Amino acid sequence: MKQSRGVLLPPLDAGRVRRADLYGALRTAVLDGVLAPADRLPSTRCAAADYGVSRGLMEEVFAQLTEEGLFVRAVGRGTFIASEVAALQKPAHANGRPASSMRGLSRRGLAAAANAACREPDRPRAFNAGTADTSEFPWKIWCRLQLRATRELGREALSFADPRGLPELRAAIARYLAQFRGIRCTPGQVIVFSSAQQALNALALLLLQRGDTVWIEDPCYLGARAAFELSGAAAVPVAVDDEGLVVEAGIRRAPRARLAYVTPSNQYPTGAALSLERRIRLLRWAARHDAWIVEDDYDGEFRYAGQPLASLYSLDVRLRAIYLGTLNKSMFASLRLAYAVVPEELVELLANIRTQMDGFSPAVPQMAMAKFMEEGYFASHLRRMRAVYGAKRKALIDGLAPLAARGWNWSANPAGMHLLARHPDGGYVRKVGQASALDVTLLGRYRVAKARQDGLFLRFGALDPESIEAGVQKLVRAAGCTAVTRL
Amino acid sequence: MKQSRGVLLPPLDAGRVRRADLYGALRTAVLDGVLAPADRLPSTRCAAADYGVSRGLMEEVFAQLTEEGLFVRAVGRGTFIASEVAALQKPAHANGRPASSMRGLSRRGLAAAANAACREPDRPRAFNAGTADTSEFPWKIWCRLQLRATRELGREALSFADPRGLPELRAAIARYLAQFRGIRCTPGQVIVFSSAQQALNALALLLLQRGDTVWIEDPCYLGARAAFELSGAAAVPVAVDDEGLVVEAGIRRAPRARLAYVTPSNQYPTGAALSLERRIRLLRWAARHDAWIVEDDYDGEFRYAGQPLASLYSLDVRLRAIYLGTLNKSMFASLRLAYAVVPEELVELLANIRTQMDGFSPAVPQMAMAKFMEEGYFASHLRRMRAVYGAKRKALIDGLAPLAARGWNWSANPAGMHLLARHPDGGYVRKVGQASALDVTLLGRYRVAKARQDGLFLRFGALDPESIEAGVQKLVRAAGCTAVTRL
Repeated sequence: MKQSRGVLLPPLDAGRVRRADLYGALRTAVLDGVLAPADRLPSTRCAAADYGVSRGLMEEVFAQLTEEGLFVRAVGRGTFIASEVAALQKPAHANGRPASSMRGLSRRGLAAAANAACREPDRPRAFNAGTADTSEFPWKIWCRLQLRATRELGREALSFADPRGLPELRAAIARYLAQFRGIRCTPGQVIVFSSAQQALNALALLLLQRGDTVWIEDPCYLGARAAFELSGAAAVPVAVDDEGLVVEAGIRRAPRARLAYVTPSNQYPTGAALSLERRIRLLRWAARHDAWIVEDDYDGEFRYAGQPLASLYSLDVRLRAIYLGTLNKSMFASLRLAYAVVPEELVELLANIRTQMDGFSPAVPQMAMAKFMEEGYFASHLRRMRAVYGAKRKALIDGLAPLAARGWNWSANPAGMHLLARHPDGGYVRKVGQASALDVTLLGRYRVAKARQDGLFLRFGALDPESIEAGVQKLVRAAGCTAVTRL
Repeated sequence: MKQSRGVLLPPLDAGRVRRADLYGALRTAVLDGVLAPADRLPSTRCAAADYGVSRGLMEEVFAQLTEEGLFVRAVGRGTFIASEVAALQKPAHANGRPASSMRGLSRRGLAAAANAACREPDRPRAFNAGTADTSEFPWKIWCRLQLRATRELGREALSFADPRGLPELRAAIARYLAQFRGIRCTPGQVIVFSSAQQALNALALLLLQRGDTVWIEDPCYLGARAAFELSGAAAVPVAVDDEGLVVEAGIRRAPRARLAYVTPSNQYPTGAALSLERRIRLLRWAARHDAWIVEDDYDGEFRYAGQPLASLYSLDVRLRAIYLGTLNKSMFASLRLAYAVVPEELVELLANIRTQMDGFSPAVPQMAMAKFMEEGYFASHLRRMRAVYGAKRKALIDGLAPLAARGWNWSANPAGMHLLARHPDGGYVRKVGQASALDVTLLGRYRVAKARQDGLFLRFGALDPESIEAGVQKLVRAAGCTAVTRL
């Protein structure tokens, strides 16, 4: 008799019935409302017979569901569906309002989430490929060094690592900076991050109060702007010209800013190099107001004529400049290692902040990177890549030559993995971009102030020579077929 | 004649003089004020002769310093130190105020930087070692899977990876959760982070406006509190008892909170399991107010009796619960992989936020982890580690037995890698902690509300059995020798 043996239990597919299947089926039946609150369940003996399993197994499943509170056992009366489950059961008839996961997001969160500026395309193509070219990366050497690092670290390879960075890597970075970038700093001033972006977030948090004013370049690297805005700071755009940031304009607009973010070696995205006069003015302003300068030297390694320019950091005697470098561009994107050079007293503070952000960088890639630097592989890899990127840049500029006659121009600063091709007529530029059917970003995207002129931002780093050539041809064709609105 | 040949240049150590040495010495001489603005430099011919280098090399160095603006060349008159360098030179007599790098930090930043709650000790010892025990980790299998992952990914191993997580890992996590945690979700709902801490930061940013109220447990995991406070939210402590979070107390104190942070499987640090009745109340409150529940299941894998309790997430039919899991505890700390299960519409939003935080997680460890899960290694590793941690917990509790007679107690919830030993007399607890000379954290550290009672938080995960035994003995001795103030 069905009544006396309790409710009918849900059927299970024939075959081997495991505990997980039984448990899942009963649980789903409760949550879906197939079994209702206060329903009496069959005895474990009956249920076991129905399902063709041992009574012991059935007992275990009942015990588990009882422990979770879905079943209730009443001594002498049997097992029942708990009355509390009513609240868990799916509403049979959703009354009006659909359950929507988009309710309860914050305005700030939605604004941040709408910003895809830091995402890279799934399949980089001309001209949206400003990331490292890995075709020449000495992969075998790297694997060998990783193995050696793993062996040397032993169990430490698996455990927590120092949130300031592995001492070996901090020392190797300090030596590299002294030798190749004219930066005198101790290993104790170097702190490792997973990316320059993360370093910017940590610095914004440490150095800025909500509402503090920050100079950003206009146009500006969007990741930096995002970091300052996430931190609650007010980003004030300061004009950029052929000598880089117009420091006087910043002083006029926001003399009391707490921080200035600059890309002095190769202004992102215009390619201008900050002149010495401007560097000095910027340092003096910062020293006078105890403001900070964050120097993002994101591709300072890639200069194709002359030596790299001296960093702002190395000209600073008042400890207001912070230097940011990344290995994700000079090595490969998935390395996830970058660094900041800061006054030694700030390292511990930033390390605590880092642990609250995401913990620390794992030790193995840090140790391998230290060896890569110390054993000279980094210097020769940079040398090779300077030739590679320099040749790509030259191919791009040679290909663009016909555009010069039509009023296009680009920065003469022989550096970097991207080139901004500008034209005074913004409408024309946008039409050319569209007609080229290439993946190009407009200068306007990086700019705050309105301007008639515009430009095509060509990120060529990861492209092979053929893609560059094909891309340039499309661009030149589009520029030639498209009429200039007015000059 | 010295006058006609220009100023005396700085000496260099004998031996092989390289361009970097020459450049560095001249630059330092300028910045240190040894060479003054408007000083005339010797000709490159003279300088080359003085240093014993080729004239070409000397020309290069002069050209570099001229390009940087430290030297100025006047045609027909020679090369001079630029007048602008005056501003760069180190002040000969620092007038008053010393240059201090601590000027210009923000109050918020200093508060965050003072918080070392998320730092792990350099050398874990009894009883501050709540991290993974890696002595049984199948290291060889892991290395083999990493190699296979690297080979399969090819160049992709080096490049940007999907900020949502590698599809293979998201699918493996969804299958694991269905099989072992009773969680039904699609791979499209899973988003990978480097740690649960990072996931909390991203969620706080997406879900909370500055000033929004958040329930935290009291006592609470300090990393969660830090994440909410960093985001500018107001954390409201809600009492915890033997059934976990006192939901009614939260509703009384902050009925309009936007989010509730809970650790229902094993309340951190008390060890309580959230009762079904409370789970249901919490879910109903969240559904009514469109509030979010963040369920941090930080060690849900480690339950030593019965099956794991059903997650809050799996009881939720209104899509208000977000599930957080980490692999950094169940695998090893330096893996840097964790995940959140969220409504599918939120994944893209969180991925954009992730890129603005630190980019993405590298592909190789994700692919290796997916294989580790799919090929059954994860399940058997968890089985082995459940036995390991369960035995450690038992040894700890057995050792603590003499303390029960002196009024100590601990949670009966058979789970986790830590144990909270409490006593009603807080003064006594603190004395015992001190007398034991162990590295123990007091319950009070995690608590906001004042209370007379206190406890010793014993994190035993990474300790070997000998350290646990020795530690317990010290603890029992200290507890016996130390007088209870008053009971």
